[in-house]
Amino acid sequence: MPSPALARPRPRTDAAPAEGVAAALAYARANGPRFVEELAELVRIPSVGSEPAHAADVRRCAAWLAAHLGSIGLDARLVETAGHPLVRAEWRGAPGRPTLLVYGHYDVQPAELADGWHTPPFEPTIRGDALFGRGASDDKGQLWAHVKAAECWLRAAGRLPLDLVFLFEGEEESGSRGMLEYLARRGPSLGADAAVISDMAMRDARTPAIVLSERGTLGVEVTVHGAPHDLHSGVFGGAVANPVHVLAGLVARLHAADGRVAIPGFYDGVDVPPPAERAALRRAGPGDDEILHDAGVSAGWGERGFSEYERTTLRPSVDVNGIAGGYAGDGVKAVIPTRATAKLSFRLAPGQDPERVERLFRRWVSTVPASGLRVRVKTLFRARPVRVDPRHPAIAAAAGAARDTFGRAPVFVRSGGTLPVAAALSADLGLPVVLMGFALRDDGMHAPDEKMHLPNFHRGVETSIRMMERLARLPFSSTRAARRPRPA
Amino acid sequence: MPSPALARPRPRTDAAPAEGVAAALAYARANGPRFVEELAELVRIPSVGSEPAHAADVRRCAAWLAAHLGSIGLDARLVETAGHPLVRAEWRGAPGRPTLLVYGHYDVQPAELADGWHTPPFEPTIRGDALFGRGASDDKGQLWAHVKAAECWLRAAGRLPLDLVFLFEGEEESGSRGMLEYLARRGPSLGADAAVISDMAMRDARTPAIVLSERGTLGVEVTVHGAPHDLHSGVFGGAVANPVHVLAGLVARLHAADGRVAIPGFYDGVDVPPPAERAALRRAGPGDDEILHDAGVSAGWGERGFSEYERTTLRPSVDVNGIAGGYAGDGVKAVIPTRATAKLSFRLAPGQDPERVERLFRRWVSTVPASGLRVRVKTLFRARPVRVDPRHPAIAAAAGAARDTFGRAPVFVRSGGTLPVAAALSADLGLPVVLMGFALRDDGMHAPDEKMHLPNFHRGVETSIRMMERLARLPFSSTRAARRPRPA
Repeated sequence: MPSPALARPRPRTDAAPAEGVAAALAYARANGPRFVEELAELVRIPSVGSEPAHAADVRRCAAWLAAHLGSIGLDARLVETAGHPLVRAEWRGAPGRPTLLVYGHYDVQPAELADGWHTPPFEPTIRGDALFGRGASDDKGQLWAHVKAAECWLRAAGRLPLDLVFLFEGEEESGSRGMLEYLARRGPSLGADAAVISDMAMRDARTPAIVLSERGTLGVEVTVHGAPHDLHSGVFGGAVANPVHVLAGLVARLHAADGRVAIPGFYDGVDVPPPAERAALRRAGPGDDEILHDAGVSAGWGERGFSEYERTTLRPSVDVNGIAGGYAGDGVKAVIPTRATAKLSFRLAPGQDPERVERLFRRWVSTVPASGLRVRVKTLFRARPVRVDPRHPAIAAAAGAARDTFGRAPVFVRSGGTLPVAAALSADLGLPVVLMGFALRDDGMHAPDEKMHLPNFHRGVETSIRMMERLARLPFSSTRAARRPRPA
Repeated sequence: MPSPALARPRPRTDAAPAEGVAAALAYARANGPRFVEELAELVRIPSVGSEPAHAADVRRCAAWLAAHLGSIGLDARLVETAGHPLVRAEWRGAPGRPTLLVYGHYDVQPAELADGWHTPPFEPTIRGDALFGRGASDDKGQLWAHVKAAECWLRAAGRLPLDLVFLFEGEEESGSRGMLEYLARRGPSLGADAAVISDMAMRDARTPAIVLSERGTLGVEVTVHGAPHDLHSGVFGGAVANPVHVLAGLVARLHAADGRVAIPGFYDGVDVPPPAERAALRRAGPGDDEILHDAGVSAGWGERGFSEYERTTLRPSVDVNGIAGGYAGDGVKAVIPTRATAKLSFRLAPGQDPERVERLFRRWVSTVPASGLRVRVKTLFRARPVRVDPRHPAIAAAAGAARDTFGRAPVFVRSGGTLPVAAALSADLGLPVVLMGFALRDDGMHAPDEKMHLPNFHRGVETSIRMMERLARLPFSSTRAARRPRPA
């Protein structure tokens, strides 16, 4: 439940942004311990979105957030979806100023003490300078930084320097379906000029980072169909095509010997950034050693001519995420399986379009030798790559806020992963999207002993306070103009 | 329980084989209906060897058989193994005559009414001219033909024309481990001169068949190991080798474009029979259309220059029986799997040796590109091919008995499957092995509505009676000499 200490703030529309920011920062420093106590309350709710047994907890978490957002002075409500509800909360008291959309998610990954946690995942505990608990950094602790920044403004300055919309979902860990549908339907009516997503890690504990690109994705399922049922491999072996062999042939042909994806036309539109930008990325991003260490492997593999970091960010890729056919349990079943299936996901570099890659893939599949068997392709999901213009004033505003808070400028990095919501905000709504997280790489997002590094949580609150002030100062037209989608 | 009508027969050692056979056949005809009632009792016991819940039933079935064999005049007992017991029953009253070993198995495949049975699988029912029930033909009905043949001799002639050993196992459907260990340890002490196995189908309802060869087998499991745990395919995709891709490359390389197995040296020792023998096989065995119809597919696939039947019997093959890696359930898990595994089985033609093929395969695996990942090969099982000399007098004796019973000579066929016990009897003990079944191809072995065609069950009893008499007439030395293993 929301803290009873929080009363609805009295509007003070007279305060100018530049004055308000100092008051808000002072308020943040004075109230930091309470913010952490509230975050612990939020982490205590086991809002595991993917587990039906936790459905009531997920809804309770959404209601808790909406009530809290209402208590600090926002107009908050739940928005129903086919799945878990969205939490939408807004403050529209700064007409003529930009509108900032803050995205976050309140669902968390599954967690059991037996997975290797040192304390129960839903009994948040402070050890050292971190709050431990499932969701502490992914994403409750990060969205909380922005919520508390709004409270600081509203309580200390009596107002926000800009219009603000919080949009939190409960299905990020399971596909964001409700949020994506909502953005497609209602996104334009939000009137946002810029968006911020804090659901990622900093470069290191001292160095903030802003993500300039995320790879898109295309998920497909390929099934090869053989005989209508499993066949005895003694009776028919050697005389009937085996779906696993055909599927293996297809997977084996995905890559050429040089590590490149062998689908004709696949790399069309993928530009290699100029040498200066590659050099900057090399300085900002992790080296080969760091990536290999994170993966737990001794050697990398992939497209020649690119570093490990470039391979995972600048370059597209395709991986089989799962393959199954016949019997692979204990013992043996001597069968020629009736079918074999592989789930593949492409990661698409900026410049690629998932629908075009899907067409190329389907055409290519039809050219792969199939020994007369039927090969079916089903599309599972698509998300466009995200590219952020580092010269956009909204990015500069975020970078300035982070620099003022952390004492050093954020590095510009790229991500190999995919945030479908970021793609929707960026490509569909045309918003500049600030991808700036406050978690640490070792915070255990998706792992046991997940934690939030508290000094950076507090710096996150301050960064958000400053970012709101800097964004508020931008000429309205600059953001409105910049958010129009660029022609493809 | 054994039928109370059966008393221990009085020995009549005076009866010569040729006289005894007529009496035994008359007895068989007079007692046929009771034999079927007893078979139904046997089928009623749900001796599903692979299901722990049926362990007590399996043992009860073995005990029932031993008691019955004792009641008809054999020295019967259970032989314990690490798994289900063997039933061993013998009659050694014909010194100077050959000793016939009759192999069978009393375990059955799993069966549930819901699988599509029209009557409960363990409530045997006669419909038309067949007895329906799990195990009716595989293998209870077929071993029962030999048991009843022995009873006919013992009851009607007071003796058997030769020494006889029944050896029945309860683990045929799950690997025959206990039987194979027993044969390796005690096989030579059985003193057998010939063996008969009836656990297969006739050519058609009117035409008996004798199997001249079975393919051997080599089962291997290939595992490709990547990172120590699943990796996020967004974060690492394109920079880290994927075990599924490596495994797929290996599977894809198993076959050359012409359908031949691409492992160097694989075909060494595989002889193509002379044209006359291929022509005879073509006449005796199923045509392409029949095999494709049985498989439920519209087109075959395999090594060029051979018919479908030849591909499955004369030629070796390799099939992936199962493959697994990563997540292939509902939805998606965006991972680069930590490992991928395939279970492969080779079917080996006469002339191939499983241990040699295993060495060739392991050497070949080490040459397949592995993108730096570890590839491990585990051997799951080996069984040598079986080749029966059609000119062996024991085969002639069986063929003559079948011809006298069915009114037409059996056709000589080849099988693509593998009976490890046949390989042990043939290759290890050097016995001529008569592979002659009384089931029909549509009897539903391993399928719902399994049945035993009763007219052929009765002909099976008569064939066994006649075969015993014909084998008994063979000069002892001919069989003893012929059963020595041939040099490789």
